[in-house]
Parts: sequence; C-alpha cells; structure tokens
Amino acid sequence: MTEKFVYDFNEGNKDMRTLLGGKGANLAEMTNLKIRVPYGFTVTTEACARFYLEDEKLWDSLKEEIREHVKTLEKVNDKKFGDNDNPLLVSVRSGAPISMPGMMDTILNLGLNDQAVLGLANLTDNERFAFDSYRRFIQMFADVAMGVEKNKFEEVLTNKKNEKGVELDTQLTAEDLKDVVKKYKVVYKQALGEEFPQDPAEQLEKAITAVFASWNNDRAILYRKLNDIDDKMGTAVNVQTMVFGNMGDDSGTGVAFSRNPATGENRLFGEYLMNAQGEDVVAGVRTPQEIKTLEEKMPEVYEEFSKTVKTLEDHYHDMQDLEFTIENKKLFLLQTRNGKRTAQAAVKVAVDMVHEGLIDEKTAITRIAPKDLDGLLHPTFKEDKLKEHEQIAQGLAASPGAASGKIAFSAKEAKQRAEKGEEVILVREETSPEDLEGMVSAKGILTARGGMTSHAAVVARGMGKCCVSGAHDLIVSEKDATVKVNGKTYGKDDVISIDGSTGKIYEGDIEKETPKLEGDFGEFMSWVDDIKEMKVRTNADSPRDVRQALTFGAEGIGLCRTEHMFFKEDRIFQVRKMILADDTQTREKALEKILPMQEDDFYQIYSLMQDKPVTVRLLDPPLHEFLPKGEYEIRLLAKDLDKSVAEVKARIAELQEVNPMLGFRGLRLCIAYPEIGRMQARAIMQAALHVKADGTNIRPEIMIPLAGDVKELAYVKNIITEEIEKVFEEKGDRVDYLLGTMIEIPRAALLADEIAEITDFFSFGTNDLTQMTYGFSRDDAGKFLKMYIDKGIFEKDPFQVLDQHGVGKLVENAVKLGREQNSKLHLGICGEHGGEPSTVKYLYNVGLDYVSCSPFRVPIAKLAAAQAVVEKENK
Amino acid sequence: MTEKFVYDFNEGNKDMRTLLGGKGANLAEMTNLKIRVPYGFTVTTEACARFYLEDEKLWDSLKEEIREHVKTLEKVNDKKFGDNDNPLLVSVRSGAPISMPGMMDTILNLGLNDQAVLGLANLTDNERFAFDSYRRFIQMFADVAMGVEKNKFEEVLTNKKNEKGVELDTQLTAEDLKDVVKKYKVVYKQALGEEFPQDPAEQLEKAITAVFASWNNDRAILYRKLNDIDDKMGTAVNVQTMVFGNMGDDSGTGVAFSRNPATGENRLFGEYLMNAQGEDVVAGVRTPQEIKTLEEKMPEVYEEFSKTVKTLEDHYHDMQDLEFTIENKKLFLLQTRNGKRTAQAAVKVAVDMVHEGLIDEKTAITRIAPKDLDGLLHPTFKEDKLKEHEQIAQGLAASPGAASGKIAFSAKEAKQRAEKGEEVILVREETSPEDLEGMVSAKGILTARGGMTSHAAVVARGMGKCCVSGAHDLIVSEKDATVKVNGKTYGKDDVISIDGSTGKIYEGDIEKETPKLEGDFGEFMSWVDDIKEMKVRTNADSPRDVRQALTFGAEGIGLCRTEHMFFKEDRIFQVRKMILADDTQTREKALEKILPMQEDDFYQIYSLMQDKPVTVRLLDPPLHEFLPKGEYEIRLLAKDLDKSVAEVKARIAELQEVNPMLGFRGLRLCIAYPEIGRMQARAIMQAALHVKADGTNIRPEIMIPLAGDVKELAYVKNIITEEIEKVFEEKGDRVDYLLGTMIEIPRAALLADEIAEITDFFSFGTNDLTQMTYGFSRDDAGKFLKMYIDKGIFEKDPFQVLDQHGVGKLVENAVKLGREQNSKLHLGICGEHGGEPSTVKYLYNVGLDYVSCSPFRVPIAKLAAAQAVVEKENK
Repeated sequence: MTEKFVYDFNEGNKDMRTLLGGKGANLAEMTNLKIRVPYGFTVTTEACARFYLEDEKLWDSLKEEIREHVKTLEKVNDKKFGDNDNPLLVSVRSGAPISMPGMMDTILNLGLNDQAVLGLANLTDNERFAFDSYRRFIQMFADVAMGVEKNKFEEVLTNKKNEKGVELDTQLTAEDLKDVVKKYKVVYKQALGEEFPQDPAEQLEKAITAVFASWNNDRAILYRKLNDIDDKMGTAVNVQTMVFGNMGDDSGTGVAFSRNPATGENRLFGEYLMNAQGEDVVAGVRTPQEIKTLEEKMPEVYEEFSKTVKTLEDHYHDMQDLEFTIENKKLFLLQTRNGKRTAQAAVKVAVDMVHEGLIDEKTAITRIAPKDLDGLLHPTFKEDKLKEHEQIAQGLAASPGAASGKIAFSAKEAKQRAEKGEEVILVREETSPEDLEGMVSAKGILTARGGMTSHAAVVARGMGKCCVSGAHDLIVSEKDATVKVNGKTYGKDDVISIDGSTGKIYEGDIEKETPKLEGDFGEFMSWVDDIKEMKVRTNADSPRDVRQALTFGAEGIGLCRTEHMFFKEDRIFQVRKMILADDTQTREKALEKILPMQEDDFYQIYSLMQDKPVTVRLLDPPLHEFLPKGEYEIRLLAKDLDKSVAEVKARIAELQEVNPMLGFRGLRLCIAYPEIGRMQARAIMQAALHVKADGTNIRPEIMIPLAGDVKELAYVKNIITEEIEKVFEEKGDRVDYLLGTMIEIPRAALLADEIAEITDFFSFGTNDLTQMTYGFSRDDAGKFLKMYIDKGIFEKDPFQVLDQHGVGKLVENAVKLGREQNSKLHLGICGEHGGEPSTVKYLYNVGLDYVSCSPFRVPIAKLAAAQAVVEKENK
Repeated sequence: MTEKFVYDFNEGNKDMRTLLGGKGANLAEMTNLKIRVPYGFTVTTEACARFYLEDEKLWDSLKEEIREHVKTLEKVNDKKFGDNDNPLLVSVRSGAPISMPGMMDTILNLGLNDQAVLGLANLTDNERFAFDSYRRFIQMFADVAMGVEKNKFEEVLTNKKNEKGVELDTQLTAEDLKDVVKKYKVVYKQALGEEFPQDPAEQLEKAITAVFASWNNDRAILYRKLNDIDDKMGTAVNVQTMVFGNMGDDSGTGVAFSRNPATGENRLFGEYLMNAQGEDVVAGVRTPQEIKTLEEKMPEVYEEFSKTVKTLEDHYHDMQDLEFTIENKKLFLLQTRNGKRTAQAAVKVAVDMVHEGLIDEKTAITRIAPKDLDGLLHPTFKEDKLKEHEQIAQGLAASPGAASGKIAFSAKEAKQRAEKGEEVILVREETSPEDLEGMVSAKGILTARGGMTSHAAVVARGMGKCCVSGAHDLIVSEKDATVKVNGKTYGKDDVISIDGSTGKIYEGDIEKETPKLEGDFGEFMSWVDDIKEMKVRTNADSPRDVRQALTFGAEGIGLCRTEHMFFKEDRIFQVRKMILADDTQTREKALEKILPMQEDDFYQIYSLMQDKPVTVRLLDPPLHEFLPKGEYEIRLLAKDLDKSVAEVKARIAELQEVNPMLGFRGLRLCIAYPEIGRMQARAIMQAALHVKADGTNIRPEIMIPLAGDVKELAYVKNIITEEIEKVFEEKGDRVDYLLGTMIEIPRAALLADEIAEITDFFSFGTNDLTQMTYGFSRDDAGKFLKMYIDKGIFEKDPFQVLDQHGVGKLVENAVKLGREQNSKLHLGICGEHGGEPSTVKYLYNVGLDYVSCSPFRVPIAKLAAAQAVVEKENK
C-alpha cells in the first residue's frame, strides 16, 4: 500500500477508479480533458480501508496530508478556508469504484461558519444566498456527519415559513434565514451537546469520517449484496470547490444523460432546476424542467454543455450520465460516468454505437448485464386487452415492462405481502433508499412525484423492474392506505396495472404478452450468437414451451421432462393404472395405452425442433407423485380399476417415502419396471422414425436420470438399447441417437470416468447435485436458507447461483474424468443454474458444450456465454 | 497364462492353492509329506477360466494333456482305464482356492463301464461291491454331470428293495444290483436320448466339464456372494485314484477335525461309517459313529490316523479338517484343509496353539474372521430363566448361541416370514444346499437328522448361527407344518428356543444374556489390544450402553447422541414445550428445565468412562421427530401448554418436511435456536467440571453435526465457545476440551481443509455421507437396494459395507485435505460402518485414529483393526 492517500484532480485519470473511486477518477479525467470542473482532490479507497483498521478514525498523517491538499485548493482558487472575505467552500462526496446511487452521503457548502458566511455574502453581494447556504450546510452536516434527525431542522424552517406566512423557502429573506441559522445552531447543540464546529478543518475531517463510515450503513450493505459488490472495496471521498446553482436565477443545476436512458434514443436527455443545488433535482422535491428548455433559456450554456457531452461520450465510448451546475451563467461539470440505462436502452445504445463506429460488436455485447435482458423479455400488455381497461392516470415511463398487482403502501407492507405470495405494486408519494427492499419485492413501482431521474426511476431501471414515476394526479396516503385519483379511491385490495414503457396506469389486471427478438435486440442477439462458443438449449416439455424457446433462439432442447406429459388430464388415468398394476402384464397393458400419446408428444416436439438436438429424459419422479391424494379421487380411481378403496390406499401408502428426493425414482424406476423404460424408448424412437420419414434429419438424445454407479447405468442402458434395436428391426429403418446420463448424484461426479465409458453425454443436474452436496432439500431449505443469508453465513442461495466453490469441485472433477475417459463426451447442464449468468460464464470456462435453461432465460444465457468469451480474451 | 493346465500331485504344493485349488494343493502337499494319498492329478483354475472363454467346452489341447496324465496314473497304479482285469477308477472332485463346502459337485467311481465292472469284481473278488459301485457311479454321473433327476434312480432302487422285501441297500445281492444297473442305464437313455457312455475318457471329460460348469450354479454363486468370494477365481478339478470305503466291513470312510470345531478342545474329533463311501457321512443319511470308537475297532488304523493328524497339524500350524477312507484296513487320506470352526473354537484353538508354541500371537489373531466373533457375543439363555421352560428334546450342539422364534418348516417360508419381521427357527428333517437362503434368514436352525458335520451344522457354524442338529426325537412334517415330539405337536405359531451350545431345545421364548470377555477370549482380546494401533470407541447414549461397551473393551465414546436423552419419558414434555415455544424466552424457560437432566446424563456417562474420551454430539434430528403424532397425545400436549389443539397441530404441520433427511436438522437447529446449543454446551461443561471436582481427568469432545460450510460451522462454534467460557467464568474452573464436527455432507468432505482450520477433530458420519453420496434415503432404499443386489447390480449394501470406491473417495479426500491443513486433526468414524470389519481395515489404511461402533461390535472392530496391522506388515 502506498503512503499517498490523497490525490489532486490533476494527479489522477479514469483508469484509477479502484483507488479514486468512479467519481474521483472521472473528475480527474475531465480535469485532464480541460473540461471546466471545480478543482479538488480525492481521498482514496485505500484510506477508507485503513480507516476501518484504525477503529473508524482518521489518523494523524492522513489529516496532515488532507491539510496540505486543502492548501493547494486554497492556492488554486485564491480562497481561504473560513475566510472573512473570500472563503473557500467545498463539497464532500463519496465515490466508490462502482457507482452506488443514493447509497452514500454528500455534504455541500462545507467551510461555512459564522465568519465565512459573511465573507460569502460580501463576495457574492448576496446575503440571502449566503445564509441560505449556511443553513443548508448546518442541516446537512448535522444530518449526514453527526446523525441528527433532519426533521428537527425542517421544523424550524416550517415554523419560520408559517410565521412569515410564506410557502416556499425562496420566499424567506436574509434576515429570516439568519434567524433560522441561529435556531439551527441551538438545535445542533441540544442534539449533540456541543457547539456547531466553526473550524472548517474540523468540519472537513468530520465529513470525511462520515463518508467513510457510510460505506457500512445498512442501505449500502444491502445495495452491495443486491448488486454483488465486494464489501472490501471501500469508497473514496471527493473534496471539491463549491460552485453554486442556487446563487440566483442565472444559476441552476441539473443532471443529464448523453442519450435517453429508458429508450436509448441518441438525444440529450435530462432535467434541471434553476436557482437550486444538486440534491434538489435528484430528491424529486421540486419537479424539474426538461434539458431542452435550457436551449431557449441559455443558448450559449446549452451549446457548451452539448459539446462537452459529445466530447465525453466520444472519449468514454459510452453513454454518459452527467451532473452540472450553472453558476452565474458559467457551466461547471460536477460528475460524469457511464450512465445506467434500461435493458432496452442498453441494447439500442450498444447497437447504435456500433453503427456510429464508436465501439465494436464484442464491446457492444459487454454493455448490458445478462440478467438485465430479463427486462426485455418481460411481458407487455396485450394490445387488444388494453382497450378493456380504463386508464386512470398518466405518469413518466421510468422503467419499461408491464405489471399488475394489489396496492401496497409501504416498502414493509410490500415485502410482507409479497412473501405471502401476493403480487403487489408498491405505490408511494416518492421512494427513498429505505424503500429498497419493498421495491425488490414488488411487481412494479408507481410514484406520484419525482422525475425520470428520481430515486424510484433510477433504482427500478437498475433492477429491470417496471416503474411509472411522477404520476401527479395520484394522491397517495400511506396512513389511510388509499390512492385517490380523479374522484376514485383505491385501497389495499384493488388491483392496478402499470406500463413502465408508456407511463400509463390502468384499473384491474391486464393480460400480458412477451416480446420477440426483433429490431435492435435481434441484431444485438445475432452478434451474441456469433461471438459465443457454448450452445444454449432450453428446458421444454410441451409444444407451447418449444415455440416460445425457439422465438428466443434456443439451439436445442437440453431437457424434455417426460413426466410432465404423464400429468396431462387425458393420460393420468392410464399412468395411475400402470402404477397400481399388480403384475407386469397389467402394467404393460396400461403402458400400451400411454405409448401412442408419448409418441405423439415427441413427434410434435421433434417436428418443431427440426434438426436441432432434443434430449429426452426418461421418467424421473417418484411414482407416488402421480397418484391421487383426495378421498374422492381415490374412490373414483378404485372404481375405475375395479379394486377396493382399501387396496388403492394400501398401494398409495406403500409408495409413500420418508425422503422421496433420495428415494425410488430416476433410473431406479426403470430397474424395477423395465417395461416403463422400454415404452419410453419405443415412443422416442418411433417418433424419431416418423419425423425422419417426414424428411427431417434427427438424432434423439436419451437421458437416463439419477445414475450413481456405472453398473446400474449399464443395466438400464441395456434395457433401452435392446428395445431400440427391436423398434429399428420392426420398422425396417434406424436413426442415429445418443445415450447419456445426468450427473446429479455426488457419486456419479466422483466416478465420472467409469460412467463416461458407457455414455455419449453428461448433463449436469445441478439442482439435485446441489441438494445432495449440501444436504439441502430444496423443498425444505427455504426456512433455513433465508436465515443463512440474513445472518450473513451464505452470500447467495446456492439454488440460484451455482456454488462454484463446493458443488463446482464435483462438476470440474466430472468434466475432467469424463473427458479423459471419453474424448467425444458431450457436456451440458440442465439444472436451473443453466440460465444464471455467473454460472453460465463459469461453465464456459469449465468447458461445457452447452447450457440448457427455461425459454425465458435463453437470451440471458446466450449473452452470458458470449461475454464469457470476450472476458476470457481480455484476460 | 502358462500353457500347463494339469499337475500331478507330486508337482504341486500347499502354496499353489490359487492355481490348484485348496484341495489340490493340499493333496500335493500330503503327497510330498509321504502321507498315504491315492495318487492323482489336478486340472487347474486357469483351465476353468479358459473353459468359460471357450464357450464352456474343454478344448483339444487340454483333453490331450488330461489323457497324458491319465496315462501316468495308469502307470503309477498299474491299472488301466476300462480294463477288464484291473480297471483304473477315479474320483472327480472340485476344489476352489477357497473352500466352498456343499457347493460344488463330486463324482465317484468314474471309469466303470460294462467291462470294467467285471474287472473290478474279479480283482476284488466281490461282485456285489463292483455292481454297487457301478450303479452308484451311473446315478451320480447322470445327476451331477448330465443333470438327470436323482429321484428317477432312487425309484428304481426302492422298487428293487420292495420287490426283494428288504430295507437297506446293503441287503441287495450282486444279482439284484446287476438288474439295478441295467435299469439305471435305461433310465439314463430315456432321460438323455443316448446310451450311458462306456468310454472312461469320455466319462472323465464330461465330469470335468460338469465340475467347471458347477462353478456357476446358483448355489455356488449365492455362497460366494455371502462369503465375499471373487467370482473370477474359478475352481480346479482333482482326479484321484479311487479307494473304497464300501469294500466290506474292513472298509470305511470318515471325516475328522484335529480339534473340536465347536469348542476348540484339543482332541481328535470326527465321525465315520463302516462299509460306506464318503458322501454317506456328509449327507447325514446314516448316523455315523464317533471317531474314538475306531480305536477299539481298528487300533492300528486309529494309531496311524492319529499320528498323521498330528503331523499335518504341526505342518500346517492350524487345526485340520480331514477326509479319510479305510480300504481293507488300509488308511488313505483324501483331503486335509484348515478346519472351519465356531468362533469359540477358533479363539480356543488360537490361544492353545500359542501356548503350545505352534503359532505366535500375531498369527493367532488372524485365525478368526472378525465378524465371526459375533458368535461369541451372541446372547445365551439366562440361567435362572431356563428353569421356567420345559426342555422338549435334545440334539447335538452343532453351532453355539441361543435363539428363539416361531417354527418355519421350509427355507422359503423362513425367508418370507423373516422379511416380514418375524423371528423364526428353521426346523427341518435335514438341510441341503437349497436351504441356504432360509438358513440366512432364520434366527436358528434345528434338524432331526445328521451329525456334527452334517450340512446344517457345517453351514450354521460358518455363518456363526445357532444350530442344533440330529435331534432324533423330532418328527418333522413339512407337509403338515408340524413337529411332533414325545406326544406333543408344535405348529407355525409356536415359539421354541434352541441352545446351540448344549443341543437342548425348549418350549417358549427364553430371556437371553450376553457373555463377557473372559478366559481364552479375554486373553485373545488382550493380544488384539496389544497389536492394533487404531482406537475403538463405541456409540453409546445411556449408562447401560456405556457399561456394556466397557465390558467389551470400548476405549472411549465416539458418538453420544443427545437426542436419545431427549426422548426419555420424564423430559419429552419439556422438549415439546421448547419446540412449540412461540418465542426465545419461552424456549429458554423450557430449556432451563432440561438443562439439569442433560447435565446429569453427561455426569453419569463421564463418571463411568473416567478418563476415556467422550464425544458428545449436539442435537441432530429434525424437531418434528420429538412431537406427538396421535390425536390423543396432541390434545394432552395442547392442554398442558394452554394452547388450542389447532395451534399445536399447526406448529406440527409447520415443522413437517418433504425430505427431513435434507432438512431442518443438525447444526441448522443451533443456528436457528442458539439457545438449544447453549443449553447443551452448558450441560456438557457443568457435568465435566463436576467429574473434575470428583477427581477425574476429563477432556470432553463436542461434536457439531451436519456442517457443510466452514462459515456455518464457525457461526455455531462461536455460540458454543462463548457459552463455555461463560460457564468457566461462573464456576471459576475450566477443563480442556475439543471441538469438532461430523463429516457427513459431501460438501464438507470436498472442502475439508477449510473445515479443519477451525476444528480439533473430524468424525465421519458415513451413514449420512452414504445417503447423500448415493442419493439413497436409508429409510426408503430398502425396496430398491434389495432389488439391486438381487439383480447383481450391487454386490453389497453400501449401508452395511462402506463403499470404498465412491464414498471412500470423499473420505480419503477429507483425510488428506484435513491433515494437510491441520496436522493435529484427530480423525474417527461414528457411522455404523465403524463396526464392519472390511471397513475398519480400510479406515486403518486411510489413516483414521479411531472407529466407533455399537457396543456389541467393539471386539469385532478391534480384531479387524489388529488384523489390518498384521496384514499391512505382511504385505
């Protein structure tokens, strides 16, 4: 670790974000680009790390280093900290290496004290401005650095406004504000038992301490957990000369994106407020104006801003998210960073930039997190259904998608009701960081206030969650649990629908549909297909699923579960008859009835898939899953079977198991009842010969589930291949086929070389593999897994994200042993992890040939697979 | 493979048993020792292996080799195959490298044909003898070599006896037997469509083929499976000049042991029949005479035999099992081998031989298979209870032990009833190899006929199963399902008790008791203790178990399950109250009530164990196991708890799990309810401080179950150690303790290095490890595991014998990673495999410090551990 903990802006650059944080690195970069940035310095993330080793205190040498950089700042600005005539004021902001909006705290106007406020008044010839700044500073400092409740100050301000009979802060005079400052200092002393610090150096040290400390506040920790950000990364602190957007009507402040963050449209996009400081825009307290109106108001400033934005976008090769302040018609850039955007925007920006020659295709496909594609695959309202529903209000299209649900009025309520399985829309006046968990739980978010860059909008886009913000007609009362709009009142049990792509709000639940891969998204995905090496298949059991998956670009079926077919209403009776059969003959008779139905299932699926590979898994679940549970159904079944109710119940009881997960299922069924396996093998092959006769080139893949030992697998393989040869002989024709197994039992992974000797492929069943490797029943682990995550014992749910550390050892072992034994071995995964981006990347590096996932995750898996290639190349 | 497939007896020796089989090698050895053995040759096991590669046919060059050895035999004996005057007759017997009594087939008198029978008659001047031999040969050859049913011949013989009005075979004249021979040949032709072969060379080839083929008959396969004999080993065939025990009243045949195979007493033990061939003795058709009566009858022969036996025992350094024939007062040895013996005899022989200077202690302890010790640990009837039961008959004390059960009249019935959980005694006129499975299933075996070397007696001793044979007073009718004795009749539902150590048979079920390690057994076990390196602990939860285990020499407790304590009647209420508690406070109150009881449990166990190590496992099973199931009990509980029945039921339902094996149990409980872990830690330590105050040197070992991740383990460790420190502080005293975990989840085995970093010991929980590695629920696998073994997919039940191949990989990995990380790591096993001999040996070689098993298996595990040391040294 270097002993240098503080960097002036001209000492850094954009590549130093690990040390300087994103904001600091970009401020340095802009400084180097000669863009007008208020000068300052950055206290590094290494200082933050050291801070936690020093019992959360600043140590002497750091304080000294900071003081020296303050001197430089004084020199550059020709101002002095706490000066009577020309005081230096600074902002203190956090800036972690990875952007964490709304999570960290900021202090403005630092340096003001009873002397400096006069100096500021003199300097600006604006006493009102000076005292307004001072009272803001006291309040913010007390709140952020010292933990004093904001309300206590708000109360003083409100009292003053009431006393003066005015509504807006701006209507208070300098004298009013002087009084407010006096009272603020009293509040401060009452709350903390000490005077408000007059020494700017002390103010600065306390502010830096507060920023470092805020790295570990609950919201920051939660945000990092949600976004997979390393807790050890730490934040930097940027200390920057203040410029004032609140210095009068020639001043203002705003935020902007170089392109539209919701749609990706290549047009400056943003908002600003005149006579305001930065926080006012983001906080959504006053509704800001669109950036284009600035063109009329201050054409030169707008011109300069537009040029600067273009410069920055060209320089960063990415869409920029900027903060700016206009101080007396002079433009200052306070921040630039790669802008967060919706998935739709990300795709459009990436595609446009490739067309504009700004980036290449490989860069383009890294510009969107795979899981964010989810937003593009989310349902939209069906056009024809929309007409049937009354639009009740209009808001801003803050984050695209469509959602319906009952109304929840607080984050806590949203969370609790969602946990009980309710679908809710979180409806708030405006959201704040405290609402984060509720936003995660809700199907969609609707706010009455705030713009496109309000907290709700920014966070919802980050999550890929549908959001409508700034629907001003809504009157939301958390206390009464009502939303009033145009004379109507909606409560907890009313269902509303929101469209985050249009900003429209509707009554009732509206049917949705899923988009297709067309236009920019289609082009983007074609690049993904070109770049990725691993195939992406889908798990699909029905023609409907197959069609959906093909729409999303599935390159095969990695898991066709035959048991889902067994459950169909018209065949469950035969299945039950088969299970309850007393002897092989009766069982075979029932199976004969099932055969043509299964054959037809496969025929339809093959016909849709054409020459794409289809992996069919033989019957897997315990037989008792197919049997009726209710008394009435049992009676019916008994009657149909001409058996007594007692007999049927006895057989059902006999099939019950203590731990069905580890019981009589998978290939164990086929060993006990080879006739089931034979029927399935026959159905698979007869259907294959049928589509072959139709002219399709087909090579079915038969997958035997739950093998743990090569001998049991050989036993089943023998049953299956014998039947297949029989079919070929009977039909006088044959097709090539593969025969493989799932690797889902730890023992199979440990002894994969033996298993590879008699199989053509492995498909990792990581659901079961995770269950057995951890000893976690997925049906039961809900209770304690949540507890493990809450208590910080586990970072992630291993059923969501593959445990590369433990379960991965088995996967890697099986890949190694399997390939060593059988170099032609084809390797895939069909557990649900197959659609989880980090797992997909991991599996690419492990050397799998394909992943298989649910139809809706196919594009996500593809993108992850393509990014894995690029990441490997860039390593 | 050498091209020599046939060895004359003077070409081999006792160390060639793999090639020549046990019988062949010993015949060669006796030949070399100049003991009188009818000369012959051996066709090797390699020929048997080749036989199976040649489509179960003898190939030309082998036939040629056999013919040449027959020529040598003719020369040595100065006889000729099929000769009119002086024909060579041979016996053909199987002889595998490992003795398989009753499993393989034998043909005597081979070489007889229509000519040779006359030659034999001339030579012996005994026409009756010659034709009796011929008819025996035809029958045996037809049955064994050609698969013709024996009954068809028996019928001819019976008809002839009826016709002549005689009862015994011996009463038939030469003429009668000539006629029988004629009719036998007709039967033979009718059955097979060809004449009985007259060419002795053809007879011999067919006989050898039959012996090789019998290697794979069902009985042989079952015997090998039961005795862990490799199927690929094959059998040799011994072709030996016939000598005749049935040549008149100066001839005879018998079997003997150099010491008593039931008790080990050092005195010649055996039986013989005059004027009989060998098979007559073993088959139990006629009841033979005790060997000592031979001393009076033929003192010189007896003298020679006694000396020969002594010579052989001294030569082999082990108790011998011999077959002999006396032909016209001339003694021939037909076989010698190390004799099978009861566990009791094995111990006594081994101890005696050490005292006699024949063998050393390390050899002595290899002289009994560990699992056979089970016989010594079997219960005997309680002396005082015996008086209350009527003795109904007396038989031979064929295999020691005591057993009670209902009567089963056939092997099949015994098997079926035992599978349903009944305890049965198999009662038969006499057993035959077909009864093997029924004998395995029965608690004990009782026969009305046959001696100490009858099939029933030999097989039962081999199994370590209680057997009374030759209880002549019994009239057993399988058809009527009755046993009549002294006017009383017993049926299927009557319970009898048999004492295999006294031969006595009783009415009713008699209470049993377990023997102690005293006398020879005590001395034997003291050598075992000296030789073995691995410690043997016990799994024990109650003072009663602990006392039992100490009696059997347990060196510590490897698994003290605290949950068994929870089930005790006086505390289950508090446990249930604790589980149903709505909040931590109520739970803690219930735990406070349990604390003193648990503390007392531990205090009592520690007091018994003194300074021996005690590993206490924290609560492991799912909580719902403690809750009542019945409506009535639930009502009672609800009332006691002042809750509604519905509330109690709801809580019970909430705790139900789909797969409890993989559910909310083990250390997961302690993470959810740290107060349970704290209570247990406190009880363990307060009890330890108590015994320390009593003056005992104690170091408790606390075992945390079901860890799969180092972080969860650390979390629990922290809870436990904090509480322990509290106890130490409160009591002002401390004890040293170890804190470890079970390795029973595959993930823990995979990541054992991480886990070893924070633990003092691992105890392999191979029950659960096997369940999860195979994906087999032990509660449910019964159904399909049996099927797997029946179908030959698995050789052994992996819950009985540790799967070294698969589960062993995890164990070895954990040992390696664990020791690399923490060189002081103490390693043991507490799964039930810890008492299984082959597993114990394996674990010694893997490097474990101890095994822990049920009290009754402690001596078995110790012996296996000692043998592992000797086997390693001898490698």
